[in-house]
Amino acid sequence: MKHLLSTADLSREEAVKILDIAGEMREAGTRVVKKLPALRGRTVVNLFFEDSTRTRISFEAAAKRLSADVINFSAKGSSVSKGESLKDTAQTLLAIGADAVVIRHPDSGAPARLAATDWIDLPIINAGDGTHEHPTQALLDAFTLRRQLALRDGVSATGLGLDGLKVAIVGDILHSRVARSNLWLLNTLGASVTMVAPPTLLPVGAESWPCTISYDLDQVIAEGVDALMMLRVQGERMRAAYFPNPREYSRYWGLDDARLGTLDAAGAETLIMHPGPMNRGLEISSAAADSPRSTVLDQVTNGVAVRMASLYMLLSGDLI
Amino acid sequence: MKHLLSTADLSREEAVKILDIAGEMREAGTRVVKKLPALRGRTVVNLFFEDSTRTRISFEAAAKRLSADVINFSAKGSSVSKGESLKDTAQTLLAIGADAVVIRHPDSGAPARLAATDWIDLPIINAGDGTHEHPTQALLDAFTLRRQLALRDGVSATGLGLDGLKVAIVGDILHSRVARSNLWLLNTLGASVTMVAPPTLLPVGAESWPCTISYDLDQVIAEGVDALMMLRVQGERMRAAYFPNPREYSRYWGLDDARLGTLDAAGAETLIMHPGPMNRGLEISSAAADSPRSTVLDQVTNGVAVRMASLYMLLSGDLI
Amino acid sequence: MKHLLSTADLSREEAVKILDIAGEMREAGTRVVKKLPALRGRTVVNLFFEDSTRTRISFEAAAKRLSADVINFSAKGSSVSKGESLKDTAQTLLAIGADAVVIRHPDSGAPARLAATDWIDLPIINAGDGTHEHPTQALLDAFTLRRQLALRDGVSATGLGLDGLKVAIVGDILHSRVARSNLWLLNTLGASVTMVAPPTLLPVGAESWPCTISYDLDQVIAEGVDALMMLRVQGERMRAAYFPNPREYSRYWGLDDARLGTLDAAGAETLIMHPGPMNRGLEISSAAADSPRSTVLDQVTNGVAVRMASLYMLLSGDLI
Repeated sequence: MKHLLSTADLSREEAVKILDIAGEMREAGTRVVKKLPALRGRTVVNLFFEDSTRTRISFEAAAKRLSADVINFSAKGSSVSKGESLKDTAQTLLAIGADAVVIRHPDSGAPARLAATDWIDLPIINAGDGTHEHPTQALLDAFTLRRQLALRDGVSATGLGLDGLKVAIVGDILHSRVARSNLWLLNTLGASVTMVAPPTLLPVGAESWPCTISYDLDQVIAEGVDALMMLRVQGERMRAAYFPNPREYSRYWGLDDARLGTLDAAGAETLIMHPGPMNRGLEISSAAADSPRSTVLDQVTNGVAVRMASLYMLLSGDLI
Repeated sequence: MKHLLSTADLSREEAVKILDIAGEMREAGTRVVKKLPALRGRTVVNLFFEDSTRTRISFEAAAKRLSADVINFSAKGSSVSKGESLKDTAQTLLAIGADAVVIRHPDSGAPARLAATDWIDLPIINAGDGTHEHPTQALLDAFTLRRQLALRDGVSATGLGLDGLKVAIVGDILHSRVARSNLWLLNTLGASVTMVAPPTLLPVGAESWPCTISYDLDQVIAEGVDALMMLRVQGERMRAAYFPNPREYSRYWGLDDARLGTLDAAGAETLIMHPGPMNRGLEISSAAADSPRSTVLDQVTNGVAVRMASLYMLLSGDLI
Repeated sequence: MKHLLSTADLSREEAVKILDIAGEMREAGTRVVKKLPALRGRTVVNLFFEDSTRTRISFEAAAKRLSADVINFSAKGSSVSKGESLKDTAQTLLAIGADAVVIRHPDSGAPARLAATDWIDLPIINAGDGTHEHPTQALLDAFTLRRQLALRDGVSATGLGLDGLKVAIVGDILHSRVARSNLWLLNTLGASVTMVAPPTLLPVGAESWPCTISYDLDQVIAEGVDALMMLRVQGERMRAAYFPNPREYSRYWGLDDARLGTLDAAGAETLIMHPGPMNRGLEISSAAADSPRSTVLDQVTNGVAVRMASLYMLLSGDLI
């Protein structure tokens, strides 16, 4: 593994290996380990062409836990806004001494373009590109699922995939790189995926994806599902005219209190996931977000562990 | 002590303890100590919902001197501006692995709300909330006063309060969290306080505060005072119509050259304090700001020591 | 050496010493050394009154390689924008515990004003002031030239100047602090300089500079030159009416493909330099920027080494 650009590139062996290392990074039952000397003297650059404080500080915390130096490069107000090309920016970071580049970009495919060229010879991690991919988010979701299952079944998570697991991804699929990255990874790890969304928030071509499409969240819940991944309604990416009516959206596509009650009444073990930040009251109710089923905060913690594992593997190199 | 939210919460014993530890952090007569391993592996998050470079870098310097990792989280352009709640932001920081949160917020009471709930189980330091409190500023002011008095009297500062000291807080009381935090702490430490301000810059209810109110700065000076705390006129918080006429403000409420001359002619030992940044020529003249009486820069240095002490006490836990 | 404000202040001995130390910082043939404990416990403040991500992260990387703590102070949105004076900002940084200040300022002379006063007793590095100077850029250019020459001649670079070297500085001289800093340093080190520019982009008084002025880039190339320093056209500093026609500028003053071909055909050893960020297709063609003659990325790497050397010398103090 030379870069981490897309979960579609990951073999099952690679994916499981990342999850296993992330497991070592996360102490049993508690918070992630505090400080490892693994990347001391290495420099990780967070190259962010769009704001994402949440993702940026997760990578920053991960790199610092591994004792790396972190340089935050926000493209706003930088030479990039003076017209510098992505190539020149990247080569400059390499020349300054960066050992890895974490890139967030509004254009789908920008990280892959950077990696596919011979511009720089550095590990690149895609921290979200347009509506395309967000692989570390999918990895942390898989880690969260695997860890919960192992706890439930009283077995070790190490080496496990997600075979036989039924996962529903619900909501604004159209604008969600999280949905795409999860779809590929969940398939690779053996889970079956149902996408649940209003027709207006499904992309053209979704019918050819390796998943079931459903327009009925209640039916999906009734048939039984191990995890419900509720997606953020990305209002900031929609034109105002297309923004759904909140009450209507919540009623049809949200995990509201009624659906939470259905899960509880059925004694289902269904987990409730959300990549954050949540629109409480829109795609998820506060009761659902704060319920014992919710893995929302566990996902954040696991995000640091997965990013530590990713940085460690890419910078150590010879692990796979 | 679990949080540092308000000086009104501090017992005399706690306040003196913080000042004593701050004293150890500050080497005798010189700059603060350079690097201590005390908080190695700990992560301090600066969660700033409004800009305050000065306060942010003071906390950043304090945390780094204690070998902690620092993550700066500016709420501008973050998921907060996408409508995330304070609760979710805070819980995310906890999940990422923060060990303490330093919070600056435009709303009075936001840090206390964060601490009073069961949202997060982390030490919280209030770095300024609305017009409410700024406890580390009051602590550094008390530290500065105590240290100057000890130097003057040739005694050790350790264990001392501020008993019998007469302090005047002058100017824009209405918008000043610094004034409020100082009022409670100075009382707790045994000092007597006079608030000196134009009636338009005194809040409703000030007459019930544990202090004397005066509208005559010259009289306060004539009666003798150990320290004059000049407050910044917070023009950015006033509507244009209410901004005082600078010449008039300086004449009536400023520490101008004439009043500096009065102090010098009387041979008074009165200290001149200011929390910064100063409006030179408005609430304080340049001659006053740069005079031997001025503790302005000493306050900044002491701010780092007091913040080191606060972080150390909150993260070590069992000191009081 | 107490500050690094201008290359005009540097003696030949001082300049060579900085380059020699930078050479030690840069491992033979490879990237700069990863981590030295030299400045552990020291705090370097990047005080930037205008955006310059490129320069800021170069200094940040340099300081961190020397194990210093770095605090970034962007004047935007800070107390500076509330009207605080440069003096008070600087004294605050000193009081907070800064050991060195790297300052970028839109006003020519601001760093020198800071150093000339008795405001603060700290080493100051000018990281670019208005159209005046950018001394570390000139030092990294000299380092790059010296290193390339030493490699070419198979000798050690240590102790060398640039005697007899012919350097042309080409383009937007008017707005370029890089041109000015290079002019003084190249002269000090024994090189001869030709400024090549359209008359509209030459400052008044350039005819009295210690260099040759030319209006004919092809003639300069034909007569032989060891290095062509192509300057960035600083469109952001020009009023729209004065911005040159790109096609015309490139044809007359750019290092375009035709001129690159001329160099290659003549078998010249001419180096192509650019301080970045490049306007590809304007002052330099992509073929020229990416040719084996180009030292663009080598300059970036050398920038970190030169800034490490500068910080080290200023903070160790007794080296010269």
